Amino acid sequence: MLNFECDYMKGACPAVLQRLIETNMDETLGYGADPYCQSATERIREACSCPDARVYFLTGGTQVNATVMYAVLRHCQGVISPVTGHINHHESGAVEATGHKVIALPGHDGGKLNAKEVRDYLKAYRADENYAHIVEPGMVYITHPTELGALYTLNELKELSAVCREYRIPLYLDGARLAYALASDKTDITLKDIASLCDIFYIGGAKCGALFGEALVIPDPGLTGELFSIIKQRGAMLAKGRLLGLQFDTLFTDGLYERNGRNAIGTAEMLADGLKAKGYSFLIPPQTNQLFVIMDNAGIGQLRKEVSFSLWEHVDADRSAIRLVTDWATPKADIEALLTLL
Amino acid sequence: MLNFECDYMKGACPAVLQRLIETNMDETLGYGADPYCQSATERIREACSCPDARVYFLTGGTQVNATVMYAVLRHCQGVISPVTGHINHHESGAVEATGHKVIALPGHDGGKLNAKEVRDYLKAYRADENYAHIVEPGMVYITHPTELGALYTLNELKELSAVCREYRIPLYLDGARLAYALASDKTDITLKDIASLCDIFYIGGAKCGALFGEALVIPDPGLTGELFSIIKQRGAMLAKGRLLGLQFDTLFTDGLYERNGRNAIGTAEMLADGLKAKGYSFLIPPQTNQLFVIMDNAGIGQLRKEVSFSLWEHVDADRSAIRLVTDWATPKADIEALLTLL
Amino acid sequence: MLNFECDYMKGACPAVLQRLIETNMDETLGYGADPYCQSATERIREACSCPDARVYFLTGGTQVNATVMYAVLRHCQGVISPVTGHINHHESGAVEATGHKVIALPGHDGGKLNAKEVRDYLKAYRADENYAHIVEPGMVYITHPTELGALYTLNELKELSAVCREYRIPLYLDGARLAYALASDKTDITLKDIASLCDIFYIGGAKCGALFGEALVIPDPGLTGELFSIIKQRGAMLAKGRLLGLQFDTLFTDGLYERNGRNAIGTAEMLADGLKAKGYSFLIPPQTNQLFVIMDNAGIGQLRKEVSFSLWEHVDADRSAIRLVTDWATPKADIEALLTLL
Amino acid sequence: MLNFECDYMKGACPAVLQRLIETNMDETLGYGADPYCQSATERIREACSCPDARVYFLTGGTQVNATVMYAVLRHCQGVISPVTGHINHHESGAVEATGHKVIALPGHDGGKLNAKEVRDYLKAYRADENYAHIVEPGMVYITHPTELGALYTLNELKELSAVCREYRIPLYLDGARLAYALASDKTDITLKDIASLCDIFYIGGAKCGALFGEALVIPDPGLTGELFSIIKQRGAMLAKGRLLGLQFDTLFTDGLYERNGRNAIGTAEMLADGLKAKGYSFLIPPQTNQLFVIMDNAGIGQLRKEVSFSLWEHVDADRSAIRLVTDWATPKADIEALLTLL
Repeated sequence: MLNFECDYMKGACPAVLQRLIETNMDETLGYGADPYCQSATERIREACSCPDARVYFLTGGTQVNATVMYAVLRHCQGVISPVTGHINHHESGAVEATGHKVIALPGHDGGKLNAKEVRDYLKAYRADENYAHIVEPGMVYITHPTELGALYTLNELKELSAVCREYRIPLYLDGARLAYALASDKTDITLKDIASLCDIFYIGGAKCGALFGEALVIPDPGLTGELFSIIKQRGAMLAKGRLLGLQFDTLFTDGLYERNGRNAIGTAEMLADGLKAKGYSFLIPPQTNQLFVIMDNAGIGQLRKEVSFSLWEHVDADRSAIRLVTDWATPKADIEALLTLL
Repeated sequence: MLNFECDYMKGACPAVLQRLIETNMDETLGYGADPYCQSATERIREACSCPDARVYFLTGGTQVNATVMYAVLRHCQGVISPVTGHINHHESGAVEATGHKVIALPGHDGGKLNAKEVRDYLKAYRADENYAHIVEPGMVYITHPTELGALYTLNELKELSAVCREYRIPLYLDGARLAYALASDKTDITLKDIASLCDIFYIGGAKCGALFGEALVIPDPGLTGELFSIIKQRGAMLAKGRLLGLQFDTLFTDGLYERNGRNAIGTAEMLADGLKAKGYSFLIPPQTNQLFVIMDNAGIGQLRKEVSFSLWEHVDADRSAIRLVTDWATPKADIEALLTLL
Repeated sequence: MLNFECDYMKGACPAVLQRLIETNMDETLGYGADPYCQSATERIREACSCPDARVYFLTGGTQVNATVMYAVLRHCQGVISPVTGHINHHESGAVEATGHKVIALPGHDGGKLNAKEVRDYLKAYRADENYAHIVEPGMVYITHPTELGALYTLNELKELSAVCREYRIPLYLDGARLAYALASDKTDITLKDIASLCDIFYIGGAKCGALFGEALVIPDPGLTGELFSIIKQRGAMLAKGRLLGLQFDTLFTDGLYERNGRNAIGTAEMLADGLKAKGYSFLIPPQTNQLFVIMDNAGIGQLRKEVSFSLWEHVDADRSAIRLVTDWATPKADIEALLTLL
Repeated sequence: MLNFECDYMKGACPAVLQRLIETNMDETLGYGADPYCQSATERIREACSCPDARVYFLTGGTQVNATVMYAVLRHCQGVISPVTGHINHHESGAVEATGHKVIALPGHDGGKLNAKEVRDYLKAYRADENYAHIVEPGMVYITHPTELGALYTLNELKELSAVCREYRIPLYLDGARLAYALASDKTDITLKDIASLCDIFYIGGAKCGALFGEALVIPDPGLTGELFSIIKQRGAMLAKGRLLGLQFDTLFTDGLYERNGRNAIGTAEMLADGLKAKGYSFLIPPQTNQLFVIMDNAGIGQLRKEVSFSLWEHVDADRSAIRLVTDWATPKADIEALLTLL
C-alpha cells in the first residue's frame, strides 16, 4: 500500500528521533524549566529575529488554537476565519468551547482571507449602530499553507497585517504545515516575515518531522503576558516539557526544519508534474505538499486498492477531488510507483 | 415625536399592570413556587394542548435562548440558525459563550430556514468521513416572526419539523414576537401547531404586552428533565418568580395575548396600505408589525426630525431601508400622523 | 398565616409601584439608554460620592455576582469567599460555570471574612513555589449583611480593604440586603464608606423594596471598562431597562432606600427583644432583619401551623435554628401576633 | 547532583523507547485508528477483566481529569475531592474552567476520602430543602496513590464504591502513579479491583515509565457514550495517536507496568529503612515511591547542595518536610549515596 493519506502517518525524522534517544536518561525539571526548552526558545527567537519573543511548546495544533483564542480574546469577542479555516471546520468546536464565535468569511483562492474582505467586515462592524449587541472581531486567523495547500504571497500578508494593525486586532497564523510553506518557491514569505507581520503564530512540528508538538510564538511579549498557567489549565503542557523543547531545538539546528519541508515539496512537485503530463486537473493549483486531484469516481475506486488517500469533495456526478499528501520522508520511488498507477 | 422605534418602548398593557397592582402586597414563596406561576403554567398548557408541558418563566429573550442551548446541546454540538437569526447576530455571542457553535445557513424570504437547506446540511454532515472532527448539528433554531417580520406557513413549519424529527434533532422556535404572528392572517399557524411541531419554544412577553419576561415551553417533559437549577445558575430566575407568573396568567386569560397582537397587526396593515398608496416599496413584503420601508436618504433625514425609528440597511447609494414598528398600544392616530409626514 | 419566610415575598414598596404606574405609557429607548436610568445613575453616584462611578442595573443577584466574576477575573483566577458566602453555597455553581474557582475560607462571626485570614491566604499563595499551578486569588467577596444577618464594622471593612489594596485584588461587596445594613445601628458603615473601601459592590433592590432588580456600582470606571456587551451576553440586561432605572431612581429619592431598611430593622429588634424576654437564644446575635432562633423541634412543628419560616440547621438532637425574616413592610401587629404564639 | 525531585525527570523506560524506535517509520492512520492503539486497548481490557471497556489515550493527567469532568458531569454538578486532591489544588483551576465546582472534603490519612465523610455529605445535600440552589455532587474523585503517597486498602475502596453506587454517583480514580500502587505490598488492591469498583479511572503513563501519555478507562461503555469528539475538542488527542497506543501496548506486555513500579517501591523502601535507622520521622508513613521526611531547616539547606528534591511544607519553626521521590529507574547506588549524606 502506498501512503498519501496525510503527513502525520510516520514518527519523527531521524535527527529528532536520535536526539530523543540520546537524551532519554537525562534528568531535567518539568514543565518547560529545562535547558532544552531554553535552547529551543533561543533558536526560534533567532530564526524569527525576535529576541524577546515568548515561545511555548504545546502538545497539538487544536490545543494551540484554542489556547490562543482563550488567552487573547476578550469576552464578547470572536475570531475572523475563512470558512475553510481549520478552527471553523475541523476542531469539533474547540474555539466555541472556549466561549468565542468563529466569524467565518468566504475566503478566496484555496482558503485565503484577503485584506479587502477583512477590512469591509471590520468597517461594517464599527459602523453598525447596534455594534454592542454583535460579537466584536478580536482576532484574524489564517493558515499558511491553507487547508487546501495554498500560500499567501508576501504582499498579501503585508496587506492583511496592515488592516489588522490599522484596526488594532492581532493577526494569528496557524502554521501546522509551516515547513512546507517555507520550503516552497511559490511564495516569498520567510519565517522572519511572519514574525514581523503576525502578532501570534505557531510553528507546526507534528506534520513537519517532529514526533509531536507545536511551538507557539508571540513576538511581542507585551501582547499576552505570561501564559504558563493558562496552558497548564488547558492541559496543553507536558510535565516532561523537555520532550517538546529538544525536538524543536533539533529542528531549528542547521536548517533541519526547512530541509524537512523541501523533501515534501520536491516530491509533491514531481507528482504534480507527472499528473499534469497525464492530463489531470486540480481543484486549486498545486503549491505545497497537498495536491487536490480531480479524478473520475471509477478511477478513484480502483486507486484505493493500492493507495491510501482522502476523498476531498465531489466535483460533479462523475468526478471527485482526492487529496494526495507528501511529507518529509516521502521517497521518490513512491511517486514513481503512484504515477504508474494513474 | 412619533415612536416607531421598537415594540419595547412602553411598560405593560393595562390588564397586566392592573394585576401587578392588585397582587402587590400578596405574600408568596419565591422562585416560581407560587400559585400565579402554577396558574399561568396551566393556562399555557391548555392554550398549547400540552397537558404535560414544562413551562418556565425567564427574565429575557437572550436568557431563554442561551439557557436552552446550554441545557439541551451536548458538548461538540451546535445549533443551526439562519444567518439573520437573533442568536447569530444580535446577542453578543451569548450562545458561543455557553460553548456552542451557531451553524449559520443562508435562509430565505426574510430570514426563514427551509426544510431543504436543513436537510442538505444534515445529510452532508452525516456523510462526511471526518464528521467526528466537525461540530454536530444538535438543534435547529428559527424565529417566528423572523427578525424581518416574516412568517412561516403551516406547511413550511411542518416540513421543517419533519426533517428535524427524521434526524432526531430538536426544533426550537424563538417567539419573542409570537403575539404578532398569532394575530396575523398572513399565516395559518396556531399556538397548538407550534406546540405540536416544535420541541421547544418560547412565548414572548416583553414585546407583546408584558412588563417583562418570557415563557419557555417544552411540550414533552422527557426532552430536558428539570431545568430549575440550570435557570437559577444562569441567573435567569427571579426570586420573586410570581411577577412573571402573574403576567402570563393575565396574558393567557380571555385571549389577551392575541388581542395585544391584533392591535399591532391592524395598525401595521393600515400603515403598509398607506405607504403602498404613496408608492413606497419594502425590503420584504409586510407580514407582521415590523415594516422595512425603502426611502431615499434625504427623506429619511427629514423624517428623523419628527419620528423615531431604526435605520436598517443601505439599499443603494441613495436609498436605505428603515424599520417602522407598531405594538399592542400603537394608536391609529399615530399611523395617520405618520402617513401625513410621508 | 404569618409570613417570616423571607424578604422577597411581596411586590414593591408603594412609592416604587406608584412610579411604575405613572410611567407605564412613557416611551423610552431600550437597554438602559433612557432618562430614568440616567437619573438613577446620578442619584447613586451622589449617594456614594462617586461622580465617575459606572452603574449598571441587572435583573438579579446571582446574575450580578456571576457577571462580575466573569468580567473581572482573569483566566486561572478565583474568588476568595467565606464558606457561607452566597456564591459558594446558594447559586447552583454560577461562579464556577463562568470558569472560576470559589476559594472558600472559614470566615468568622456569622459568615464574615477577616483581614488576617485573607492576608494569610494571599501570603501563602505568593510564597508557594508552585503558585503557577494553583488558582490565583483574583477577588475577595463578602456580603453585608452576611447570609446570617451579621454586619461588618467600619474598622473590619477598612482592614479588609487595606489587605486587598496591598495585594492589588479587588474587594467586592454583595449588598443584596444592603438597606438593612444601612438602617442598622449595629454598624457604623455608610454607603459612602462602602464606595470608598470596596472596588465593586451592588445595592440590592429585590429584597429591599424594589419590585426586582439590583444596581451594580464600580466606583473607579477604569477598573473594568464598559460592561454593556458582557451584561447583554449574559442575558442580565432588560430590553426595557428603564424598569430598573426608575425603581432605583425612586429608591434613591428622599432616603427611601434606608427608610425601607428601617422598618425591617425596627420590627426585627422588637421581635428579638420579645424572644429574649421569653428566654430564647440565637445562633448568632441578632443584627439585622434575619433572626436565627434556637427552638426545640416539637415547638417548631407546632409553630409551622401558623407561621411560615425556614428551618436553618439542626443544633442538636432536640433543637434546631429557624430563620425569621422581616422586611420593609412587616407590620408591628405581625410581630405581636408571632410573639403570642411563642 | 542526586535527583529525588520527582518521577517525571527522565524519558521512557528502555522497552518503551525501543518500541518507539522500531515503529518510527511505520505508517498508520491518525487519531487512534491504528493497530497499536487497538492492541493496547485489548491488553488493558484484559488486564482489567473488562472486555467492553472504552479506553482512550490522552496526552496528560490534567487533560484526563478535566476531560472526564467536562464529559461526565451535568450542568450544576460538581465533583467531590479531598482538599489535597490534585484537581483541587494543582491544576490551575482546570476543572472549574470546564464549569464545575470542586467540592473539597477534608480527607484523612494522607489525602484519602473515606466512605463516612462522603456519605455524610451526600446525605446532607439530599436532605437540604434548598438543594436545587446548591451544586449537586455528581462524581467522587480520589487518587491512588494519593498526592502524599498514601494507599487505599481494598476494604476502604469497597466502602467508597458502595456509597457511590448507593447514591448513583460515579467513582473516579486518578492513577497518575498507579504503577507504584500496584507494586506496593502496603495495599491489596489490584487493577481488576479498581476496574470493578471504580466507574472511571486512568492508568498513569508519564510518571510510570512511558515517555508521556495516560490511558483513560471506562469499564462500562454505557456510562459516557463515545468521547472521541470531546477529547478532540479539548485538544487532548494526538494526531499521531499511535505514539500513545504503542507505549501502553508495551507497558501492558509481560507485566512491564508493574515491574516499573517495583523498582521505585524497592528503592523507596530501602531509603525509608535507611532514614528510619538514622532516626528520621515522616509526615505520613511511607507507602509508595514518595517519602515525606521531616528534617531541620539547616540540614535541608545543606542537602540541597548535592540533592534535588521538593520542599513540601513547614512543620514547625525549625523543621520542614521534604519530598523524596524514586522512580522506575532509580538505581540503588543513588539511595546509598543519598543515605551517606543524611
